[in-house]
Amino acid sequence: MAEQLLRHGAYEYAKKVFDDIRAFSIDEPGVSRQGYGPKEQMVHDYMIEQAKQLDLEVFIDKCGNLFLTLPGEDRTLPALMTGSHGDSVPQGGHYDGLAGVVAAMTTMWWMRQVGHKPKRDITMLVTRMEESSWFGKAYVGSLAMVGQLEPIDLELKHRYRDETLREAIASLGFDPEAMVNGEPSVDLKKFCGFIELHIEQGPTLDSHEKERVGVVTGIRGNLRHKECHVWGETAHSGAVNKEYRHDAGMAMGEFLMSMEKHWEEWLEKGEDLVFTVGVMKTDPSSAIAIIPGHVQFSIDMRSLSMDTLARFHKLMEEEGARIGAKRGVKFEFDRTLVCEASGVDPDLMGHIAKTAERCEIPHIHMPSGAGHDAAVYENVGIPVAMIFVANQDGSHNWREKMKLEDFMLGTELLFKSIESYDD
Amino acid sequence: MAEQLLRHGAYEYAKKVFDDIRAFSIDEPGVSRQGYGPKEQMVHDYMIEQAKQLDLEVFIDKCGNLFLTLPGEDRTLPALMTGSHGDSVPQGGHYDGLAGVVAAMTTMWWMRQVGHKPKRDITMLVTRMEESSWFGKAYVGSLAMVGQLEPIDLELKHRYRDETLREAIASLGFDPEAMVNGEPSVDLKKFCGFIELHIEQGPTLDSHEKERVGVVTGIRGNLRHKECHVWGETAHSGAVNKEYRHDAGMAMGEFLMSMEKHWEEWLEKGEDLVFTVGVMKTDPSSAIAIIPGHVQFSIDMRSLSMDTLARFHKLMEEEGARIGAKRGVKFEFDRTLVCEASGVDPDLMGHIAKTAERCEIPHIHMPSGAGHDAAVYENVGIPVAMIFVANQDGSHNWREKMKLEDFMLGTELLFKSIESYDD
Repeated sequence: MAEQLLRHGAYEYAKKVFDDIRAFSIDEPGVSRQGYGPKEQMVHDYMIEQAKQLDLEVFIDKCGNLFLTLPGEDRTLPALMTGSHGDSVPQGGHYDGLAGVVAAMTTMWWMRQVGHKPKRDITMLVTRMEESSWFGKAYVGSLAMVGQLEPIDLELKHRYRDETLREAIASLGFDPEAMVNGEPSVDLKKFCGFIELHIEQGPTLDSHEKERVGVVTGIRGNLRHKECHVWGETAHSGAVNKEYRHDAGMAMGEFLMSMEKHWEEWLEKGEDLVFTVGVMKTDPSSAIAIIPGHVQFSIDMRSLSMDTLARFHKLMEEEGARIGAKRGVKFEFDRTLVCEASGVDPDLMGHIAKTAERCEIPHIHMPSGAGHDAAVYENVGIPVAMIFVANQDGSHNWREKMKLEDFMLGTELLFKSIESYDD
Repeated sequence: MAEQLLRHGAYEYAKKVFDDIRAFSIDEPGVSRQGYGPKEQMVHDYMIEQAKQLDLEVFIDKCGNLFLTLPGEDRTLPALMTGSHGDSVPQGGHYDGLAGVVAAMTTMWWMRQVGHKPKRDITMLVTRMEESSWFGKAYVGSLAMVGQLEPIDLELKHRYRDETLREAIASLGFDPEAMVNGEPSVDLKKFCGFIELHIEQGPTLDSHEKERVGVVTGIRGNLRHKECHVWGETAHSGAVNKEYRHDAGMAMGEFLMSMEKHWEEWLEKGEDLVFTVGVMKTDPSSAIAIIPGHVQFSIDMRSLSMDTLARFHKLMEEEGARIGAKRGVKFEFDRTLVCEASGVDPDLMGHIAKTAERCEIPHIHMPSGAGHDAAVYENVGIPVAMIFVANQDGSHNWREKMKLEDFMLGTELLFKSIESYDD
C-alpha cells in the first residue's frame, strides 16, 4: 500500500517535471531545446533546483555536463551513473533525451522518499548537445567529457544562423578550447557504470500489449553512404524503345528490390540488420518525357554486428555491379562512413533483467537502432546498459508521444536496479 | 552516272543549307531557334531566298507558316505537301525539325535539276513553333493553321523572359487574335497529303548497319501523369525494424519492377508500348537516417494503340493498389493527360515503302515515339506519312547528331516518292 502511494507520488513528481520543462521549451508544433542554447540551459538550471531540494551534490564539468550526486556510504567506490541529454531536435518531441533525465531525477526523488542510503555514490548525469540537428555533430557534450571532441568540431556552423559551435558554447560561459584539449573533464575511472533510460524511438515495444519496457542488448552500428549515384542515359521517353534504354530509375528500382530480398533472407537467417535508402532523386532537370539518366541516393545500413554490415555492404557493391552490367548503367558509392556498434555490459544488463523479473515488470530484450550517449561511454570502457520505454510515432518529429504509465514502468525498473545494485 | 552527279549535287546543296542555318543559329554548345523568334524567322527568310532561286511560289499564311510551291500541270488538283518545322529547343540539336525542312528544299532543288513537272502542285511547308520548350505549347503554328489554337494559349509565358506568346507573335508582325479565331489559315481540302521527314530521335535506326531509313507506321499516343505520389511513413532508419516499415522508396522500387515486368510481357505478346518514370524524388526534407515517407513521380506511357495504353494504365492502377495494400502505403495518381495516337495514311505509307523497294533504299517500318506536326494534320483529315532518318545521341539536347549520308538516303526517298506520286 505504501508502495502504491510511492508509485503514485513518483508519477506525480515526474509529470510535474515534464510539464514544467515543456512549458518553457514549447515551439509549436513541437519543442525546441538547442544544445548549448538557452532552453537546454534552462533544463540544467531546473535540475539543479530539484537537486537542491533533494540535497544532492552539484558538479558542472568544463563542458557544461551536469553531475548530481546522492552520496553513498563508501565514497571511495566508483559511482553508478544514470541520465541522458536535455536537448532536443528543432521542433521535435518532448521525450527524446528528457525521459532519461526525468527518470534519473525521479529515481533520486524515490531514493530520498524511501530513505535509501546506497553503498556507493549514485550520480545523475545531464549531458549537452546529444542531437546533431543543430550543428551536424552528435554527442558533443559526452565526447568532450571523455576528451574526444576535436578542435575542428568547433568550426561547425549552425543549421539556420550565422553561428559556430565555438560561439554557442562560449555564449553559455564555457571555454570551447578547454573542451577540445583531449583531456576528459572527469576521471573516467570514478564510474562503475552508466544506465540510460530512453524512449525506444521505434514501434516494437508499442506493438506489445504487455511488455512496455525493453532491456537493450546493444546499440547498432552503421555503414553509410551520403551520396551514391546511378548513371544511365537520358533519352526521349517516346522515341526510345525498351531494348535501347539505360534507365537509371529502373536500375534504382531493381537495386532496391534485390537489396530488400537479400535483407529479408538475412533476417530469416537470424542476422540483425536494417537497410534504408532515405534519399532518392532524379536530377532537377528530369522531366516527364525524358528517360532518367541519373539518380542520386543515400545508404544507411545498421546492425549490432559490424561483421554483418561488412558482408552486407560487400553484397550491395556486388549487386550494384551486377545490375549495372545488366542494364548498361553505372552504380557509384561514395566514401563509406562507419559508426561502430556498441555492446552493453553483460553484467549490468543481466542485473537490470533480473531486477525486472524480480519486480514483475514485463519486458523484452531488444537492440537499440539509434545511437545514444551510452555508446560514447562504452567506447572508453565504462560499463553501460539501457532501458527502453515504449513510445508512439517515432521521434525526431513533433508527433512523438509517450505514455506516462509506460515511462513509470521503465523508471521503476531504473530505480529498483540502482537500489539493488550492490545487493 | 548523271544520277550519281545529281546525288552529289543534292548532297552539296543540303550541306550548304544546313551550314548556313547553323552559322546564324549557333548557341554554344547547341543551337537555339525559338518559335516566333528572330532565328526561326531567319530560317523562313532563308527558305524564301532559296525558293526565289528555284522559282517557287511563296505564300505566308496569317500564322506565319511558309508555303513554297512548285506548280503542277493541273493546278485544280489538291497539292502534295512536305516539310517540317524551323524552330528548335533551347540549346538543342540542329536537325530536329530542320532536317525535314532541308529535305523538302533539297527535293525542290532536285526536281528543278531533273526538270520534273509534277501533275499537281508540290508545296513545301515550314511551320512555326513546333517545340513546346519556350512557351509550354507544342505545334503552335500547325494548330493555328488548322484553326485549333485557343485564345487562352496566347497568354502563355516565355520560359525565361517576361513575354507572352501573344507578344512574341506580334513582334514578328503577325496578328495573334486572327490566329485564334477558329478559322484555318488555308483551305485544308486543297491538300492531298503531307509527308514529313524527321530524324528518328531514338537509337533504333542507328543500331542497324544497313537500314538507315524508317517508314513510319504511326505516331504513338501517350497517357501521362505529371505528379503521382507514394505515401508511406517516415521513421528512424535505425530504430524501426523491417516489419514495422512503410517505406515509400521501397514501394516505389516494387512498383517500377512490377511495371517493367508487365511491360516486358506485353512486348513479347506483340503490343507496342514504352513506359517511363522520368521524375522520381523523395522530399526535400528526406535524409540519410530517415525512412522515406513520400516519393513523388511522373508517368509517361506511349503506344500506337490507345487501347493498349488504356489497358496498361488500368494494370498500373491495380499494381499501385496491390503494392499499397501489401506495404501499408498509398499510391496516388493525379489527372490522366491523354494525347491521342495518330495513324498514317496506309496508301501514302505504302507508296513510300514501294518507292524505297523500287529505289533499293534499305529501310524498316517503325513507329514514331515522339509527336510531330504531321499528327495535327492527320487529325483534320489530311493523309500523312513520315520518313525517319537515323541519328545519334537522341534529340532535344545539343549532343544530337545526324550523318549527312543517312539524311541523303531519306531525302532521296522523299524526292522519289513525290516524283512518282501520280505515276
